Amino acid sequence: MSHLPATSTADSGPFGVTAPAGFRAAGVAAGLKSTGARDVAVVVNDGPSKAAAAVFTSNRVAAAPVLWSRQVISDGRADAVVLNSGGANACTGPEGFGNTHRTAEHTAAALGVSATDTLVCSTGLIGVQLPMDQLIPGVDAAVAALGTGAENDGGSAAAAAIMTTDTVSKESGFAGTGYSIGGMAKGAGMLAPGLATMLVVVTTDADVDPDTLDAALRAACRISFDRADSDGCMSTNDTVILMASGASGVTPEPDEFAAGLTAVCTDLALQLIRDAEGAAHNITIRTLNAATEGEAETVSRAVARSNLFKTAIFGQDPNWGRILSAVGTTDAAFEPDEIDVSINGVMVCRGGGVGDDRDLVDLSGREVLVEIDLNAGADEATLWTNDLTHEYVHENSAYSS
Amino acid sequence: MSHLPATSTADSGPFGVTAPAGFRAAGVAAGLKSTGARDVAVVVNDGPSKAAAAVFTSNRVAAAPVLWSRQVISDGRADAVVLNSGGANACTGPEGFGNTHRTAEHTAAALGVSATDTLVCSTGLIGVQLPMDQLIPGVDAAVAALGTGAENDGGSAAAAAIMTTDTVSKESGFAGTGYSIGGMAKGAGMLAPGLATMLVVVTTDADVDPDTLDAALRAACRISFDRADSDGCMSTNDTVILMASGASGVTPEPDEFAAGLTAVCTDLALQLIRDAEGAAHNITIRTLNAATEGEAETVSRAVARSNLFKTAIFGQDPNWGRILSAVGTTDAAFEPDEIDVSINGVMVCRGGGVGDDRDLVDLSGREVLVEIDLNAGADEATLWTNDLTHEYVHENSAYSS
Repeated sequence: MSHLPATSTADSGPFGVTAPAGFRAAGVAAGLKSTGARDVAVVVNDGPSKAAAAVFTSNRVAAAPVLWSRQVISDGRADAVVLNSGGANACTGPEGFGNTHRTAEHTAAALGVSATDTLVCSTGLIGVQLPMDQLIPGVDAAVAALGTGAENDGGSAAAAAIMTTDTVSKESGFAGTGYSIGGMAKGAGMLAPGLATMLVVVTTDADVDPDTLDAALRAACRISFDRADSDGCMSTNDTVILMASGASGVTPEPDEFAAGLTAVCTDLALQLIRDAEGAAHNITIRTLNAATEGEAETVSRAVARSNLFKTAIFGQDPNWGRILSAVGTTDAAFEPDEIDVSINGVMVCRGGGVGDDRDLVDLSGREVLVEIDLNAGADEATLWTNDLTHEYVHENSAYSS
Repeated sequence: MSHLPATSTADSGPFGVTAPAGFRAAGVAAGLKSTGARDVAVVVNDGPSKAAAAVFTSNRVAAAPVLWSRQVISDGRADAVVLNSGGANACTGPEGFGNTHRTAEHTAAALGVSATDTLVCSTGLIGVQLPMDQLIPGVDAAVAALGTGAENDGGSAAAAAIMTTDTVSKESGFAGTGYSIGGMAKGAGMLAPGLATMLVVVTTDADVDPDTLDAALRAACRISFDRADSDGCMSTNDTVILMASGASGVTPEPDEFAAGLTAVCTDLALQLIRDAEGAAHNITIRTLNAATEGEAETVSRAVARSNLFKTAIFGQDPNWGRILSAVGTTDAAFEPDEIDVSINGVMVCRGGGVGDDRDLVDLSGREVLVEIDLNAGADEATLWTNDLTHEYVHENSAYSS
């Protein structure tokens, strides 16, 4: 769709975390998922550089693997990541933290690296202890699988192993000049990150120092994952990891690298929103001519979190009154009688009142573009969400996650 | 239910806006509702006092009747209220404001009072002009009906005339010492007031000055309507009006009057939540031992606005992890490992981790009590919400409001 951010650059490279040189990955089934699907993944950076950066959920109820990984990343180095689905290991107390520690120690020993350079990610039901008698053998199996098969298969297997209610696995890639970036992500619900999001691992064979990685990752997340808001619910486990092997020997210009990274993160964020639980419409909310970018984001998010707006879109109802009532709850600079609202190109609200014929709006397709012109400045922000459907209610009332 | 606020005092008196002496009311069908149901109401204060107070939505996109009524109430006097369903008259520009003005002028002329002492309330679809050729004759019919029938019938007819997606009309009453308070309310969706709520008219035959009325009304709203949060969506039309006729000749102690008023407002707020669109559970969220009452309210509201929590309750799933993940998004004072959560009396989360067996929680009934103990202070706040159901999605995707 023309109104979505250009993702062609992110689609140009080979996909996934093993596309860049210097990385191995695997994903295996260890029995944590009752379906028998893959549920344990390992991603290893073989270097020569072990530079890394990460951002984590701002939720104050943070899972044990988040508490652990924050310490691991503090020195800007990571040798490996071990990830599991089938259990979030959140709200699990000292026993849960001990299980994360043990997982890191076991993975590190199997790989011959240090536990303090081993990141851990978990996703699944909150408040349940991980089945360590399944997880530990799973780590062994994943490490054993690292040496077999094509590298890209390992990346795809890892991407599959971190899925929960995702219906498809998410991978992306970017081909730079002499280097590449690859990534994987999971997330379909509890999808409204604060500073970070879901589980995401991005790899690159560029040679980039930790400080530059950190700055590029934070800048990319701010306008990619942080602009994805499916259901307003922030997870306890959100983590985005970036690891650089330096295997290409190329050190790109920071701006070029940041642009490539942002393209990969945006592509992954859009894949998350497109696979959000029960969604029938992908909705892009662009707030224009705001006094500041922050106010534009606030307005877009207020609309994205309105259940009445989201159910209206599900019902293919271009109900701009529900948009204005959401805008009116914010403290952004605007005059109510100067707001224009377009839905899929039809300006249904002009100057805060009735605009063009709402019957001209076609909401039968999956993509919806809402443009809110505050006429109060020159800044803008785009946010991505989805509609609120029967399937969302069904999935989240029948599925304990 | 024992955990709901005591409403026995509010149930003690005769019900509705015509229960107190000095008031007449009527509700008629003027054709604004396609169903042919009542849609225009008038409530008149015959005095001798005309003291009044009102609070309005804090939504910055305020409807024309809100803009008008704010001016009317500024001198602490109101002689009458004219209300219509079948159209919110919000986002309707100068023409919409003109229609509100004309409605007040016409009503005032028919009653022999001043337009500047005539409040106007509207509810229904945003962004559509009112059908004045139906509304004006409706006002005439309502004024003509004021003099006929029993007083209580007029109050009930008025309560019926302001319904939109409400399935039942809402009335309440309180019997004071020598005076009484009566009230009516409407509201079933877009139900998360800021400072005011929905359409509510409360009457009393006590002799109370406007300043005391205003103080009592704001205090009552703060812990009644402001604690009802069905779907997180704030209306453009929320209005609560309080009128005192003084017909009893009794001037109650301010504290006693405020307590009676709070009882009526709480009773009406609970009736609104119980009739919220598509709800299958009435949920009371009580946050205990917070550092401040404001932080307790913030925590309760964060949980009340979590779609994942609300769908879990619909699915009869005591998913306390979704409660903690919502609590963790707030800036209230707490330590994550010191939070206890009980659902219907079962402490499913103790010290931020797994507590008693979640299978002990019975969510088959309509009433749900969630108690969140922050162990961070001595203040508390209770908020009322409901679950997120298939019926909510159906009603709000199929019904343009």
